Amino acid sequence: MQAEYHSTDITVRGYHLDVYQHVNNARYLEFLEEARWAYFGDSIHSDYFAKNKLAFIVVNININYRYPATLGHILEVRTSLKDIGKKSVTVLQEIYLKNSDTLVVSADVVFALLDQKVGRAVAISDELLEVLNLERTT
Amino acid sequence: MQAEYHSTDITVRGYHLDVYQHVNNARYLEFLEEARWAYFGDSIHSDYFAKNKLAFIVVNININYRYPATLGHILEVRTSLKDIGKKSVTVLQEIYLKNSDTLVVSADVVFALLDQKVGRAVAISDELLEVLNLERTT
Amino acid sequence: MQAEYHSTDITVRGYHLDVYQHVNNARYLEFLEEARWAYFGDSIHSDYFAKNKLAFIVVNININYRYPATLGHILEVRTSLKDIGKKSVTVLQEIYLKNSDTLVVSADVVFALLDQKVGRAVAISDELLEVLNLERTT
Amino acid sequence: MQAEYHSTDITVRGYHLDVYQHVNNARYLEFLEEARWAYFGDSIHSDYFAKNKLAFIVVNININYRYPATLGHILEVRTSLKDIGKKSVTVLQEIYLKNSDTLVVSADVVFALLDQKVGRAVAISDELLEVLNLERTT
Repeated sequence: MQAEYHSTDITVRGYHLDVYQHVNNARYLEFLEEARWAYFGDSIHSDYFAKNKLAFIVVNININYRYPATLGHILEVRTSLKDIGKKSVTVLQEIYLKNSDTLVVSADVVFALLDQKVGRAVAISDELLEVLNLERTT
Repeated sequence: MQAEYHSTDITVRGYHLDVYQHVNNARYLEFLEEARWAYFGDSIHSDYFAKNKLAFIVVNININYRYPATLGHILEVRTSLKDIGKKSVTVLQEIYLKNSDTLVVSADVVFALLDQKVGRAVAISDELLEVLNLERTT
Repeated sequence: MQAEYHSTDITVRGYHLDVYQHVNNARYLEFLEEARWAYFGDSIHSDYFAKNKLAFIVVNININYRYPATLGHILEVRTSLKDIGKKSVTVLQEIYLKNSDTLVVSADVVFALLDQKVGRAVAISDELLEVLNLERTT
Repeated sequence: MQAEYHSTDITVRGYHLDVYQHVNNARYLEFLEEARWAYFGDSIHSDYFAKNKLAFIVVNININYRYPATLGHILEVRTSLKDIGKKSVTVLQEIYLKNSDTLVVSADVVFALLDQKVGRAVAISDELLEVLNLERTT
C-alpha cells in the first residue's frame, strides 16, 4: 500500500546547478522548503500560532543525495507526515525524477514546537493537532 | 587621481557557479550586498533609523557583466559613494579580479529613504547625513 | 494595444525574504531567470548553439524595485522581447502582483551573442534569428 | 583533549535571513560548503582527480539546528575529518557563535568517491589518501 503524499513539481534550471553541473546540495533544501510551504498551505498561517506565540522550527534534517539531477529534469517532491511525537514532528520528503522511480533525494525533516513566550521547545498539545487537523502517531 | 573605495574580497566557490560554469548573475547581487553590509558597517544599525522609522531601500540596480569569473577566482568588490541627492543615494560598486585591472562587474545601486510612518520615500535631511557622517554631493 | 508577453507565476515563500521581510533584491534576479528559462523553452537547447559554439550571455541588467513583495504574494513575471539589434537582444521583464496592476519590479535584460570559438561577442545573424523564430526590430 | 579543526569565519548579513529573521536552513549548507572549500584548499584541485576521473560527491548530510543565528552574528565554522572508511569519508562541521561555546549547527557530511569512468562509487585507495595527505581511520 502506497502512503498518501503531497506533490510539488520543480523544473531544474541553469541557476540551480553548481560547478559539478548538478543541482547543488544546498539548493535541494530550498526545493524541500518550497514543497513544505505548499504542503502546509494555509494551516501554517493559522491565527492559533500567532495568538499563542508558537512556531514550528526545523531542528534536524537528514538528507540522502541519491541521484544527480541536472538541467531540464522535472522533479517531483513528495511530502508526507512520518511521525508526530510528544515534542517533535517528522516530515518525510522524497524527490523523484518525474514519472519515474528514480529517487534523487530523500530526507527526514524534524520540527520542534517553539514557545516564544518562554523561548524553548514545548510539548505538542492535542489542541494544536486539532487546529492542524492532524492525528498523533506515537 | 583614484577615488577612495571600501574593499571586500570574495573567493569564487563551486556553489557560486551555474550551468555556464561562471558566477551566476543573481549571485553577483549577493556579492554586492555582502560588500555594502561591510561598507556601511555599524552606521546602518544606528538608533537614528529605528527611532525615526526610516530605512534606506534599493530602488534601482544597473549592473554590467564584463568578465565571467569562475572557480577559484579571488574577487575584490570596491564600494564607494557616487552621489547623494535630495531623494536618493547612489553607490558605485565594481568587482575586479584581485590584483589585476580586469573589471568583472560594475553596478550603480540607488537607494531611496523610506519613511515607514507614512509609507513613502522622503527627502534625505542634513541631520541624517550628519548621523551617517556623509556630505551631500548635489 | 497591449504587447504579447510570456507569463510565469511564482509564490513568495519564507526563504525568499530577507531581514527587511521583503523579497531580497538578488532573489528577484532568480525569479527573472526562472521566467526566461520558461520563456526561451526548448529553443535555447537548439543544436544550432552547440554546433556553432554560440551562447547568449547577459551583459546588462537594469532593474527597478517598485513595490516590496512579501510572504504569500503570488507574482506574475511577464517576459517579452523588447529589441533585437545587430549585436544585442533586450528582454523586458515585469513582475506584477498577480491579478492586479501593482508593478513590483521592472527590468531590461540585455544579451550579447558570444562566439566561443573566438571568445568575443559577434553579430546576431539572420540565420540565428530564423533558428529562434525571431524578427529583427532595428 | 580538543581535536584539531579548520576554522572559517562568516558574518551573518541581511540576505542570509528568512521570514523568521534567522539564518535560513538552506543557507547553512552554503556556509558549510564555503568552509569545506577553504578546508580542502588546493588538494581538491589536484590533477590526480581529473587524470583518474574521480570526484568526491556528497551522499548524506545530517544537520542539527541548535541555535538561531541572526543579523550581525559572527559565526565560526569548524571543519574536521571524522572518519575515512573503505567507501566513504565523513567530515564533521560545527558552527559556533564566534568566541563563545554556543553551538549553532552541527553536521556530519558524508562523501563517496565517484569513478566517472564507470559512473559509480568506488573504494578509497591508499594511493588517493597519500595524494590528499590523509590517514585511514577505520
